[in-house]
Amino acid sequence: MQIAFLGGTGDIGEGLAVRVARDTDHDVLIGSRKVEKAESAAEEYQQKLTDCGVETTIEGYENPAAAARADIAVAAVPAYHLSDTIESVADELDDAILVSPAVGMQRDEDGLHYNPPGVGSVTQLAASVAPDDIPVVGAFHNLAAGKLADLDAELDWDVPVVGDDADAKETIMGLTDEIETVRPLDAGALANAAEVESVTPLLINLAANNQDLHDLGVKFW
Amino acid sequence: MQIAFLGGTGDIGEGLAVRVARDTDHDVLIGSRKVEKAESAAEEYQQKLTDCGVETTIEGYENPAAAARADIAVAAVPAYHLSDTIESVADELDDAILVSPAVGMQRDEDGLHYNPPGVGSVTQLAASVAPDDIPVVGAFHNLAAGKLADLDAELDWDVPVVGDDADAKETIMGLTDEIETVRPLDAGALANAAEVESVTPLLINLAANNQDLHDLGVKFW
Repeated sequence: MQIAFLGGTGDIGEGLAVRVARDTDHDVLIGSRKVEKAESAAEEYQQKLTDCGVETTIEGYENPAAAARADIAVAAVPAYHLSDTIESVADELDDAILVSPAVGMQRDEDGLHYNPPGVGSVTQLAASVAPDDIPVVGAFHNLAAGKLADLDAELDWDVPVVGDDADAKETIMGLTDEIETVRPLDAGALANAAEVESVTPLLINLAANNQDLHDLGVKFW
Repeated sequence: MQIAFLGGTGDIGEGLAVRVARDTDHDVLIGSRKVEKAESAAEEYQQKLTDCGVETTIEGYENPAAAARADIAVAAVPAYHLSDTIESVADELDDAILVSPAVGMQRDEDGLHYNPPGVGSVTQLAASVAPDDIPVVGAFHNLAAGKLADLDAELDWDVPVVGDDADAKETIMGLTDEIETVRPLDAGALANAAEVESVTPLLINLAANNQDLHDLGVKFW
């Protein structure tokens, strides 16, 4: 499959892109609002993989061009850019699955708080903005970007996946399962996304309040 | 210390009570609205410990009498009984720390959803109802009661703890650390309780949607 990371020049995009490129046979495309930025990031990720002994080709495109080629488009952008990003590629998302990993958070003196949009969660916001025939799946919300991008790191993390389209969810769980040292878990429907997303500010609060804990993910058992 | 489990006849109360009684030197008291129910549960838990070779005395009281003896009072009641329970013991909570493990959840066709009260979280509701001079700490929200009450089970779970009173939070983290195979983590202030509580419906949704997963807890790293 062709996996496009829209906004893939950011830190969560980098981590997912290099791990998918290393661990799977799928093609990785980096999207950005500016083609130069996308090409530069793609080159950097490819070099990083070459340095690890992985021969692969990663290409950079403007977001709509990346979306047009994608079987799976991951909206790897901050929550406040999500609607704009999806709208900018909506006409190109032919038959693709759209994946939303973004989380809405707000910081105050006590730390980070989950701050969902009115529709209930950022993942549901993605679904409300995406074209009706494009299935939206929520995944990768709880992955610490720094550790994700460190290809030497063993993650041993779980990835709760939500979605209303069973086939699309299965495809994304399958992709997740191909990434080494992470485990996909079915967290239910899109309506269950808030409980997944709100783990992310908890992870950041735990890292802020406990010595020796940083770059946290989560494991369920 | 004297650790009272108000509403300790329920499943989360049972699990915490038997583990505290087994793993620590603290005295365990079971509270209930009816003294007969408290005494009967206390006897049952004591027998369960005797069967495991642990000699200990667990006593049952009406909730106010249990609270009056407590250094730590755990409000081990469902969220919808929390305010009533705290109000019924408020005059007796002299110098005690009040611990709130309850979570507000609502079920619909998609599963369980986090359903906090207007003050933001059930833990903050406990703090709003408790007397001003009684420190409230949130802990034990994410423990699956069945596995907790199974004394043969190795948990290997984390317990995020929230509170605004640093000494009280340290005391509860210390108590948690004495319970074998759980690890206390500082999750910040009471204002961070919602992100901890909302893990619980996620755990239940994950167990409902994934074969071979049940009685889930959580581990952060």
